[in-house]
Amino acid sequence: MRAVDIIAKKRDGLVLTREEIDFFIQGFTKGDIPDYQAAAWAMAVLLRGMTPQETADLTMAMVRSGKTLDLEGLAPVVVDKHSTGGVGDKTTLVVAPLVSAVGLPVAKMSGRGLGFSGGTLDKLESIPGFRTSFTVKEFLAQVRKYGIVLAGQSRDLVPADGKLYALRDVTATVPSIPLIASSIMSKKIAGGAQAIVLDVKVGRGAFMTTLEKARELAQLMIQIGQQVGRRVTAILSDMNQPLGRAVGNALEVIEAIQTLRGEGPEDFVEHCLIVGAEMLILGGVSKTPEEARELLSRTLEEGEALAKFRTWVEAQGGDPRVVDDFSLLPQAPVVLPVLAPQSGFIRGIDAREVGLTAVTLGAGRERKGEPIDPAVGIVLGPKVGEKVVKGEPLLTIYARSPEDATQAQKRLLEAYSWAEEPVPPLPLVYEILRG
Amino acid sequence: MRAVDIIAKKRDGLVLTREEIDFFIQGFTKGDIPDYQAAAWAMAVLLRGMTPQETADLTMAMVRSGKTLDLEGLAPVVVDKHSTGGVGDKTTLVVAPLVSAVGLPVAKMSGRGLGFSGGTLDKLESIPGFRTSFTVKEFLAQVRKYGIVLAGQSRDLVPADGKLYALRDVTATVPSIPLIASSIMSKKIAGGAQAIVLDVKVGRGAFMTTLEKARELAQLMIQIGQQVGRRVTAILSDMNQPLGRAVGNALEVIEAIQTLRGEGPEDFVEHCLIVGAEMLILGGVSKTPEEARELLSRTLEEGEALAKFRTWVEAQGGDPRVVDDFSLLPQAPVVLPVLAPQSGFIRGIDAREVGLTAVTLGAGRERKGEPIDPAVGIVLGPKVGEKVVKGEPLLTIYARSPEDATQAQKRLLEAYSWAEEPVPPLPLVYEILRG
Repeated sequence: MRAVDIIAKKRDGLVLTREEIDFFIQGFTKGDIPDYQAAAWAMAVLLRGMTPQETADLTMAMVRSGKTLDLEGLAPVVVDKHSTGGVGDKTTLVVAPLVSAVGLPVAKMSGRGLGFSGGTLDKLESIPGFRTSFTVKEFLAQVRKYGIVLAGQSRDLVPADGKLYALRDVTATVPSIPLIASSIMSKKIAGGAQAIVLDVKVGRGAFMTTLEKARELAQLMIQIGQQVGRRVTAILSDMNQPLGRAVGNALEVIEAIQTLRGEGPEDFVEHCLIVGAEMLILGGVSKTPEEARELLSRTLEEGEALAKFRTWVEAQGGDPRVVDDFSLLPQAPVVLPVLAPQSGFIRGIDAREVGLTAVTLGAGRERKGEPIDPAVGIVLGPKVGEKVVKGEPLLTIYARSPEDATQAQKRLLEAYSWAEEPVPPLPLVYEILRG
Repeated sequence: MRAVDIIAKKRDGLVLTREEIDFFIQGFTKGDIPDYQAAAWAMAVLLRGMTPQETADLTMAMVRSGKTLDLEGLAPVVVDKHSTGGVGDKTTLVVAPLVSAVGLPVAKMSGRGLGFSGGTLDKLESIPGFRTSFTVKEFLAQVRKYGIVLAGQSRDLVPADGKLYALRDVTATVPSIPLIASSIMSKKIAGGAQAIVLDVKVGRGAFMTTLEKARELAQLMIQIGQQVGRRVTAILSDMNQPLGRAVGNALEVIEAIQTLRGEGPEDFVEHCLIVGAEMLILGGVSKTPEEARELLSRTLEEGEALAKFRTWVEAQGGDPRVVDDFSLLPQAPVVLPVLAPQSGFIRGIDAREVGLTAVTLGAGRERKGEPIDPAVGIVLGPKVGEKVVKGEPLLTIYARSPEDATQAQKRLLEAYSWAEEPVPPLPLVYEILRG
């Protein structure tokens, strides 16, 4: 078998066999197949596509490129949750302790923010002392002891993905649905997931900007799951405006804690209940979404989810007192309230622009490995569909300097669009697809 | 400007600007743009295509990647000739001295054989002592003194092409018409050509297997010529069966000398007259194809072309006595005449199979840099459309060993197809496109 023939086959739009895909991925991981062949192949995949069977084979070839975690025995069904990335998406910070408090163990690997999209690791690390680096042994011990653990992606797991993603990033081959689907699914499967709830974000602040593309990605991941024996539920949720109100690492931790206290913004609370409910259903804890919501709401109300968050923070070396004292979190030196420049209904808050403004404030990074400032960010006031009177509070900017704050204010005001007539609020969830 | 953005633009099917193409090609040549980015770009170009303007810009960017030869003043119009490659195509060996004998200087760079396709350099080097490596100064001195010179491609000319071609070869990005066209045209233009006759081969033994693809390539090269101020004539000629009778390096030299003596196979003589006539027209020597043919035929008949060949061989260090004594050329130890296995009309002689059989005999190479055996090859007897009686001579194999000869015989007999009813001969030329 020759790499060049496999590239030619995909170039010509033919279907690769499992053996060919495996040969290519293992060869690439070991370095026998050079980057330039993988780059040509990735572009051919992007432009020619892959069948669900090919994508499933690619997923499992990537899983086989490294070690896998065995979480069997931890629960009847080990459920993982994955968001395709958005702005203000701190769902894991709430859903992980919430679901764990109900009795479904959560052993999760997460990523860092890149571009407009934030990352769960960055958010958690704004808690003083919070540690996200564990050996496999420690990781398993944590989940056994506390029922919850969250760590960075281990380098031993799916090395093909790390290598391929770095290459895709510089060869304009990121936006390929089969490559995105296999990247996500391989990491989840290697991480031990037996079932997966996918939160597929749709809109301006997401990688999938149209419902059609998001549905295509969701359906493909469900099909991959079917091919490889993993149940997958995909929630297509809105990311045209940011989720909740806070965008920025410590600010999002605060919003998550408020939500666990029962004081979260309505849209975000609802989103957490939807995601959590699907996890309980896949995990065999609840039979119906209604039953699951009931259980989750009660767990929230009774303070068990907040207690689990406290345990979790402490178990990972963080200071649990942040739950009661937000001043222990990093504080931005400049806080600039921004008032509504006009009266009217908010028609749109461009999530991508808000995310990119957060990056310029220092909350995110344009390239991997860049440092971030955990304190800075944005907290939104009224959201799409709400009525605002000129001069009332619109949002608050947390910045390192007055100049940063002023620049951010200009860009953020341009991210808003207005209507004179009432505008319906954006839907939270477009569809839920159950595999 | 960033390479990744240029790749993304082409990935999305957009048209690249001259500046973007130049940035990419110069960056790639210098090594600032790595192979993996060029590989992804080449695959995007292959699958998304390029406009004639983009292809012209790519051609000139490649020309600018290195030095160029200045042949001005050598003739009113310096004409080059290029074949896209085939089986038994020894046209240059005849046309170069023929056209030079008429008074149009020939200063040409040629390539080596690869795969089923032979190379002019390999053929000429089967003449003992023949040298194809010259400095630019020597090259120019040769053409000034003798009116004819043929050398290998200089590394100083179009370095981008050498680098890009090597990468395309291993990334399945060879069969892209814009990349093929710009590769050919950049080398011709850098080599000093002011006008170019392209012999675009069509059929089983060519890179373009259909007339449609060959016409597309030809028209694109004509358009490139128009964009960059070079007149281009493209001859679409048949390569379903081998050209002439001889396939193999020394065997093709013999056929070329026989042709210069006026004893060549009818199809090959005719092909040389057609190609030579187009060169004379572009070079301003003749007004019409009829006038040019008349001049070329007379030059052949009067022995001037053969005399020029003799001068040429001697000028490049070769032994000119080969013209009169073929035994001075390398001789194959095994000569196996193959008789017709049946009576009938020859319906087809698969040129690709004949070419690949010649490679297995040692006449060609599968990979660049492999040595070849100048003595071995095949000489065909009757060709497509001719009537054959069982047991009459069909072809002759020149091999290194009886085993090689026997294997080649088996494969060659399978390359013939037969008809009981008369079959029309194959056309020699399908179309001539004049830019």
